[in-house]
Amino acid sequence: MDAKEFCEFGKATLAYIADYTENLRDRNVLPSVKPGYLNELLPREAPIKGESWKEVLKDVERVIMPGVSHWNSPHFHAYFPTGNSYPAIIGEIVSAGIGCIGFSWMSSPACTELEVITMNWLGKMLNLPEEFLNCSEGPGGGVIQGSASEATLICLLAAKERSTRRLKEEHPDWNDATIKSKLVAYASDQSNSSVEKAGLLGSMTMRLLPADEKCRLRGSTLLEAMRKDEEAGLVPCYVVATLGTTGTCAYDCLDELGPICNENNVWLHVDAAYAGAALACPEFRHLMPGIKFADSFSFNPHKWMLVNFDCSALWVKNSRYLIDAANVDRVYLAHGHEDKAPDYRHWQIPLGRRFRSLKLWFVMRIYGVEGIQKYIRGSVKLARYFENLVRYDNRFEIVADVTLGLVCFRIKGDNSLTNELLERLTARRQIYVIPATYMGKTIVRFVVCSQNCEEKDVEFAWNEITTQTTEIFKSQIEASAVLEDRSIEIRTIITEKPLENLTDKLLDLEITSTVKNSPTIS
Amino acid sequence: MDAKEFCEFGKATLAYIADYTENLRDRNVLPSVKPGYLNELLPREAPIKGESWKEVLKDVERVIMPGVSHWNSPHFHAYFPTGNSYPAIIGEIVSAGIGCIGFSWMSSPACTELEVITMNWLGKMLNLPEEFLNCSEGPGGGVIQGSASEATLICLLAAKERSTRRLKEEHPDWNDATIKSKLVAYASDQSNSSVEKAGLLGSMTMRLLPADEKCRLRGSTLLEAMRKDEEAGLVPCYVVATLGTTGTCAYDCLDELGPICNENNVWLHVDAAYAGAALACPEFRHLMPGIKFADSFSFNPHKWMLVNFDCSALWVKNSRYLIDAANVDRVYLAHGHEDKAPDYRHWQIPLGRRFRSLKLWFVMRIYGVEGIQKYIRGSVKLARYFENLVRYDNRFEIVADVTLGLVCFRIKGDNSLTNELLERLTARRQIYVIPATYMGKTIVRFVVCSQNCEEKDVEFAWNEITTQTTEIFKSQIEASAVLEDRSIEIRTIITEKPLENLTDKLLDLEITSTVKNSPTIS
Repeated sequence: MDAKEFCEFGKATLAYIADYTENLRDRNVLPSVKPGYLNELLPREAPIKGESWKEVLKDVERVIMPGVSHWNSPHFHAYFPTGNSYPAIIGEIVSAGIGCIGFSWMSSPACTELEVITMNWLGKMLNLPEEFLNCSEGPGGGVIQGSASEATLICLLAAKERSTRRLKEEHPDWNDATIKSKLVAYASDQSNSSVEKAGLLGSMTMRLLPADEKCRLRGSTLLEAMRKDEEAGLVPCYVVATLGTTGTCAYDCLDELGPICNENNVWLHVDAAYAGAALACPEFRHLMPGIKFADSFSFNPHKWMLVNFDCSALWVKNSRYLIDAANVDRVYLAHGHEDKAPDYRHWQIPLGRRFRSLKLWFVMRIYGVEGIQKYIRGSVKLARYFENLVRYDNRFEIVADVTLGLVCFRIKGDNSLTNELLERLTARRQIYVIPATYMGKTIVRFVVCSQNCEEKDVEFAWNEITTQTTEIFKSQIEASAVLEDRSIEIRTIITEKPLENLTDKLLDLEITSTVKNSPTIS
Repeated sequence: MDAKEFCEFGKATLAYIADYTENLRDRNVLPSVKPGYLNELLPREAPIKGESWKEVLKDVERVIMPGVSHWNSPHFHAYFPTGNSYPAIIGEIVSAGIGCIGFSWMSSPACTELEVITMNWLGKMLNLPEEFLNCSEGPGGGVIQGSASEATLICLLAAKERSTRRLKEEHPDWNDATIKSKLVAYASDQSNSSVEKAGLLGSMTMRLLPADEKCRLRGSTLLEAMRKDEEAGLVPCYVVATLGTTGTCAYDCLDELGPICNENNVWLHVDAAYAGAALACPEFRHLMPGIKFADSFSFNPHKWMLVNFDCSALWVKNSRYLIDAANVDRVYLAHGHEDKAPDYRHWQIPLGRRFRSLKLWFVMRIYGVEGIQKYIRGSVKLARYFENLVRYDNRFEIVADVTLGLVCFRIKGDNSLTNELLERLTARRQIYVIPATYMGKTIVRFVVCSQNCEEKDVEFAWNEITTQTTEIFKSQIEASAVLEDRSIEIRTIITEKPLENLTDKLLDLEITSTVKNSPTIS
């Protein structure tokens, strides 16, 4: 493919993506395919001869799109949002076009330096404590990771390294294996599954402590768990506090957890994957006090800040611990710049890394801080609008405070009602919402995701929800009526011919309300 | 930014990337900036108001390009190649445009299914054993990882899980911590730094065993190390064999290592990050016998198969072990499709994942198998051409067999000569090569990287190398002449005024040949 053909192909692809994005509202948000659908549409082997790009692009619509769950659809209200925007897509093109690997300063200086600078921009926009920034005195700094999962894991490993060194000094007779087997990590039972996974992958016991009635991890709960472990000869090492939990967007009490961690040499990592973006707006900062106590802080611009996946921001107060945990320079031939620029390969799990800061740079410059704030405030406003719609309808109840873009609600009464609602909505594929559990109750999570989501989309979703709810109640009433009729019939049966065939007849009459398995949040 | 502006912005960006790619030959392959250069060119904070996209695009050339090491330049011969091609870039655009997160089948069926299919295509093209493919009976399958580092780490964790389960059955009295502290991993001292890092991050002792004189890990070396560990009460768990080492593109003896691993319940992982792509060509398969013994096999289409970073291919014979190591479904609400489609979130470290198989699909379809073979054969042919040029010049020697796209050579004689050559080449920034060490000797690694590399570029590089070598010899001859002159002078000094000030005078005359620190391979 020559340059001319590339430009034609690219132009057609951009037009396709623009059309896709602008008309996304008209597609069903969920696909209707069955597992294995694509096998029927594609050959079993790669083609021997090259094909025309036109055929390939045509096939994106023909074979791929029928199987896509449209995360950027204005009708997508599941999980938390995945970021996207036109400027980010173009940033991705430039990153791919340059195609450098920035594992050290020398391997592409601009790649490291733009990351340092944009992470400073971002940290300042979020009003993070100075110590986290590269531009401050001291060993703090920011780095782009692939995901919050990796941020949680790499910080767990750094914490492990820090504790191991300290314990070795205090107990010269303990060996590494002994020390590592004593270390314990803590998070709330509301933390994302990636936190538990970090414990598993990083070989550290991860205790998921009970959150309070507001789904927050409290200081007293942590302290009690730590004391218990210490009494058993274990050593508390790492705490992951969540700001904006996946289930209900709850905020662990950092101002209680922080001092406990700091006083006990325990690494405090803050996972603000979704909610962190809201720190760009001063009016939301009160929701998340105590960040100053953290050793590391991460949030995902690729969630709620218009940058497409992947771009997960992580800041640490002391980068030395990360480097100690991951540095394997076997032949140390310094290029002489380590003191002036970070070698980011030591700040992450993989060796290679792409030029992801370009996406951040494009988004921050083209939107500006005001543009980003406007987007976040817009999502929150729509969520409030949805909350009000729910509150006006007596059949529903709001569960957990609505603070940002997530509204948790349910149909009053038995869980089976909400379960049926979820099942119906998923089957109809008009909007996508997912369940969570709150104090034993099934709830629906409704998140404002797409940047193209408008009031009319919230109204569309609400209409879909209420219509289906009405259907549920209607069929319930009908079912009761049937039951009423049948119970007369049963009495007749019993009167006519007691006991004989009774069980069979009753089984025929059973009104089933089996809850089919629904996708769950991870 | 509306759709129209996006298309204009995109069109201008594509034209810029096309122009960059086509004229890359004219740029110095290495930048001349000093650390911190970008700080001088960019503001300290993000702009409050949004800026025009034209300003941003202009700044790519103005501030970013001066700091880029051009990995896709035909003059880039360092490291191993980073893949790139026009079809891959467009695949990236479609992936970003759709912007779905494919952590489970349900979260975007097409994302999982296209990955399954393209990994089958790829595995068949490489002639991998059937057991590795998703389309075979049994629990094997392929998955796209971010990097070979992650593939090595996730397989280490799977191996750890497998061994732990087995040992728990055999020794019900051993606890998890005891078992895990006994497990040992092995690789050659020629393996990539990411292998050692996997041991560090995965908390498993990683022994780097001595390679033979051809830089290969032999079966006898492994067996001896394993026996020694077993005698000390440890348990061999994981072996990483490299096909195509970073230093000299050597191939560990898989047909020796394989049976040892299989017989001893040791997981054998093959890291063929670079060389694996050559398996697409039947004539290179004889270089890498014994893949059938492996439990897992990984190579990077983002290295030598025209796909831009990241796209690292990993196949396992039994995916159950990966899933056991990484699965943290805390509330198991099945969506009922697990048996029919993999939930790839359990096959990797992070939870989120993008639609990377689109890149693979675009490249394989638009190039076809023949196009990919042609590209690989072309690189090998150019490397052979370079090898011949080196062999015809008596001042140089070839070190290690040239099998694919890497040529290792040095100036005959003292290491200082080759060190000076490297230093001069880096300082002149016309071509980029890096050093490695082979049997105590400094060598230059010359890799054919860019898909735009042609004979004329190889000649350009060779001309640069020989010219600088001539300069070195010339200055050496001059230095000897000076030394000759000065030694007469010294004799005069000594004769005239013995001992007095002699040391000072001699120091003045010292001919320094200090080797400055050069970047090293990672």
